[in-house]
Amino acid sequence: MNDNINRQVLLVEKPTGKLAPEHFKMSEGAIPEPADGEALVRVRYISLDAANRAWMHGATYRAAVEANTVMAGGGIAEVISSKAPGLAPGDLVFGDTGWQDYAAISARHLTKMPKVEPMTHLLSVYGIAGLTAYFGLLHVGKPKEGETVVVSAAAGSVGSLVGQIAGIKGCRVIGIAGGKDKCHWLTSELGFDAAVDYKDGATFKALRAAAPKGIDVYFDNVGGDILEACLAQMNNRGRIACCGAISQYDGAPSATGPRGVPGLIVVKRLIMQGFIVMDFMDQRGEALSDLQSWVASGKLRVQEDVINGLENTPRALIGLLAGENRGKRMIKV
Amino acid sequence: MNDNINRQVLLVEKPTGKLAPEHFKMSEGAIPEPADGEALVRVRYISLDAANRAWMHGATYRAAVEANTVMAGGGIAEVISSKAPGLAPGDLVFGDTGWQDYAAISARHLTKMPKVEPMTHLLSVYGIAGLTAYFGLLHVGKPKEGETVVVSAAAGSVGSLVGQIAGIKGCRVIGIAGGKDKCHWLTSELGFDAAVDYKDGATFKALRAAAPKGIDVYFDNVGGDILEACLAQMNNRGRIACCGAISQYDGAPSATGPRGVPGLIVVKRLIMQGFIVMDFMDQRGEALSDLQSWVASGKLRVQEDVINGLENTPRALIGLLAGENRGKRMIKV
Repeated sequence: MNDNINRQVLLVEKPTGKLAPEHFKMSEGAIPEPADGEALVRVRYISLDAANRAWMHGATYRAAVEANTVMAGGGIAEVISSKAPGLAPGDLVFGDTGWQDYAAISARHLTKMPKVEPMTHLLSVYGIAGLTAYFGLLHVGKPKEGETVVVSAAAGSVGSLVGQIAGIKGCRVIGIAGGKDKCHWLTSELGFDAAVDYKDGATFKALRAAAPKGIDVYFDNVGGDILEACLAQMNNRGRIACCGAISQYDGAPSATGPRGVPGLIVVKRLIMQGFIVMDFMDQRGEALSDLQSWVASGKLRVQEDVINGLENTPRALIGLLAGENRGKRMIKV
Repeated sequence: MNDNINRQVLLVEKPTGKLAPEHFKMSEGAIPEPADGEALVRVRYISLDAANRAWMHGATYRAAVEANTVMAGGGIAEVISSKAPGLAPGDLVFGDTGWQDYAAISARHLTKMPKVEPMTHLLSVYGIAGLTAYFGLLHVGKPKEGETVVVSAAAGSVGSLVGQIAGIKGCRVIGIAGGKDKCHWLTSELGFDAAVDYKDGATFKALRAAAPKGIDVYFDNVGGDILEACLAQMNNRGRIACCGAISQYDGAPSATGPRGVPGLIVVKRLIMQGFIVMDFMDQRGEALSDLQSWVASGKLRVQEDVINGLENTPRALIGLLAGENRGKRMIKV
């Protein structure tokens, strides 16, 4: 990295179909000057999330990412200089830094982070992924001991934590993931009771075999056919925590929704509830304290997938959308 | 009615498409003798409900209605003779009497009813319809004063009460119904703030005009396209009370669900919740007391659509599925 240059990854064109490397380009700019109320930060790690792709469509919980701007993304960064009270050089912060080396950001949009070892945990178990798993499972899905919990995208950053937390709470846990290796990893390393390989083509049947007593809580990261298969196997008064719809992000959104809505929702008295982790931030302290104690005691394994180099951010996101990661994928800038 | 004969309406064939008169036939049998624990009842009024049609599919909250049996249906009946403690001749009861003059029913499956004037209110505002509207709106939809509430099948037995109760609670109320006359009736007679005629073909736009601030609570009786149109206009943290899916009952169930599931559920943090009125029966007393006081004060108008003659039950149900009723349709036996 040249210390006078701010490398940036621009989204040059909004994808209409699958995201590809040509939708991005590297660019160079000057390191910005912080205005009053802002801090200049140097980005250390950039979080990669399926939601990044959804932002390109717009119609999410944030403004759409526009073409010919720096690609948006959450990151852990170090304060270099500050014109904001409460932030000093050396402080570690989380914010929407974008895919670049440096950013000048209003202090209002930065969250000061503690120094933990390894620092990457601030983007995985103690970051959005960990809090999403924690609040989505425990505050939305509300599993009770002995119930059956199913989570999709189970080998991903959120899913791998959801399954383990459900296990800590005494539930039977089934993960849905793509490929034999991931499924084997879930059961042999992360303590899932069973795993279903959706690439096998018989998801409904495999799920029936893995959850013979039906599903009480389904933590949905994907939407589409897998949501439909789970809906059909929910028990009365089951809860579906709607976290995301990865299957709908990379390409044209589906023209239809899952069968069983609203019919099965009525007859089984299901609750389907969407949530966004930001809505739970007032309870962040409680969540972090639980997560820290589970990590310290070895009950919660944190899997990270760190890729080096800002220039690799586009292909890292494209790969994540294709499901090639295990655990929390991020870029070391 | 011949006093020695029990006239019955049989379902002779399960419909695969639209329900038609030839799926039923009239039959005559002997008046049954009550066994120990049973009462012989004479049916006074039979309730007609969209759910009757769903029971023919099966996969609802009750056993499917089979071909060549007396068509199932709730009714208000008078006890003629009793071999069950707690039930005496002259008592009024509610139960699944079926479409017939007489039935011998276990006392466990009968609910003793108070004598109210008119008796028909036991099937409308103080019956399943009224309790469904009450619990579904207030305990599932949970509208707050000033919020916008939309209800579909708004001129029906449940919908007409939902809209009025939402009005009593200080909400802006929009009804969706089929036809100009029904829509006019909702706004001029029942106090709805606006009505949308779905037969007009521009439901989405009309709804946008009627609910310029978006929808906070949607009470869904129909599913399908109307659910889809409402989903797209829900406000953040909106609630959808899933009561039924009339659009799916009469014919082959839809092969797809509404667009926006789960995408919009996530980004808007919606709750979609199915319910069945039976689940709330422990709170029946509270509900009946509210409903009675609203009826007595004239705040709640009860619309009933009473058709004479057991032999007219099939066409009354067929007409209800086609939306020809206003308020609670029932047969006077």
